[in-house]
Amino acid sequence: MGTGNVARHLFDVFSEHDHIQVVEVSGRNKESLDYFAKFTKTNSQNKFVENADIYILALSDDALFSVAGSLRNINGLLIHTSGAISIEVLPKNVGRGVFYPLQSFTKNRKVDFTQVPICIEAENKRDFELLHILGSIISNQVFEVNSSQRSALHLAAVFVNNFTNHMFHIGQQICGDTKLPFSILQALINETVHKIDSMSPFDAQTGPARRGDSHTISSHLDLLKNTDYKSIYLELTESIQKTYGEKL
Amino acid sequence: MGTGNVARHLFDVFSEHDHIQVVEVSGRNKESLDYFAKFTKTNSQNKFVENADIYILALSDDALFSVAGSLRNINGLLIHTSGAISIEVLPKNVGRGVFYPLQSFTKNRKVDFTQVPICIEAENKRDFELLHILGSIISNQVFEVNSSQRSALHLAAVFVNNFTNHMFHIGQQICGDTKLPFSILQALINETVHKIDSMSPFDAQTGPARRGDSHTISSHLDLLKNTDYKSIYLELTESIQKTYGEKL
Repeated sequence: MGTGNVARHLFDVFSEHDHIQVVEVSGRNKESLDYFAKFTKTNSQNKFVENADIYILALSDDALFSVAGSLRNINGLLIHTSGAISIEVLPKNVGRGVFYPLQSFTKNRKVDFTQVPICIEAENKRDFELLHILGSIISNQVFEVNSSQRSALHLAAVFVNNFTNHMFHIGQQICGDTKLPFSILQALINETVHKIDSMSPFDAQTGPARRGDSHTISSHLDLLKNTDYKSIYLELTESIQKTYGEKL
Repeated sequence: MGTGNVARHLFDVFSEHDHIQVVEVSGRNKESLDYFAKFTKTNSQNKFVENADIYILALSDDALFSVAGSLRNINGLLIHTSGAISIEVLPKNVGRGVFYPLQSFTKNRKVDFTQVPICIEAENKRDFELLHILGSIISNQVFEVNSSQRSALHLAAVFVNNFTNHMFHIGQQICGDTKLPFSILQALINETVHKIDSMSPFDAQTGPARRGDSHTISSHLDLLKNTDYKSIYLELTESIQKTYGEKL
């Protein structure tokens, strides 16, 4: 159930494997169902019609809250794919589980699922093993992650993905303001990420905040005209300095 | 002049090319000079003894300020390698220039210089061309960047490198607190960077701040016990929401 980004990407990768059969896709948005209708049964009643071993709710968090409570007569394992939501959102009278692919999915951008960590949770051994088999068919990285760990993981993902991407956005704005192409920062961005393959982010840190270079920090604050970016600069500089025991 | 990270990396890459000859390395730290002494002349008097076409000050910003003013009788082009410092720090009575390799250098970690943007500045055409030749021998990316652009670029580099790395550090702390390996975030981090090869960071943004998901934002704030990380979360969430015209 669901026709969004996660539903599409899971459908695509499931379809590549003979051991997995998607018997039906359900979703309220008829247009979005077209994508799936070429390959499998679809229904726009937002319910499970066909019988299956696993019933997957690949929905937005809001839709998940509103749909999950109303599901009845599920004869199999019912799972959701959300990083932020507990297994407890699912009705108590069914086999319940979670299958959270930890990745940032973008429409029309193919993902190599073998590298995507699949975080699974279930309430009994049989269901857990079933999810483990499903996860292992599409990915080389299957992790047992309970609901409390999964919320923390989702939060960590916001820092390393959403917030990092915002740093890139700010970098691009600063380059644009001074008529330089953003591509000039590409090698540095790549190195920032490759470095942590061989050392911890703690050890990899460099720059004015880390070395307590107050002269450069003041010049940077003078340069920053955007007050939001200035607050971010100050906040992150202070946090880095605390991390390394320095004070502003 | 200088024996730190930038001096070493430049020395290593210059030594690989027959068209460049390093005739002397000077630095106050005798131990650090050992690294260079096997391959070229060295002196610990912190001055240029040999004649050369280009005299390079590969010094920390503080050392650059204290040394630059005292240099006399330079018969050639005098340059520094700092991102944050203006060309004006160099004495007026010599040919002056800047040769700033835009990369985060780490001791004992080899860098592919062909991909490192070399940002050059000079005050006359002849000096500029000399620096352009030097840059082009070691890198495929040589940019003309004046002192004012270079400060902005250095500031942008703090956002995309130092601050991004701090996001990784916070992600690692959150994983550690919930007993998950940081490696579980690796695929997401890689995708965060690869995505901006094909779209702008503005278009690549996803997550609760971007879609105005206040339910997830409050859960995340509840989860965050570290007050510094909480302020950072709030600050960055607000900035993302402003970027996309949403309000908290």
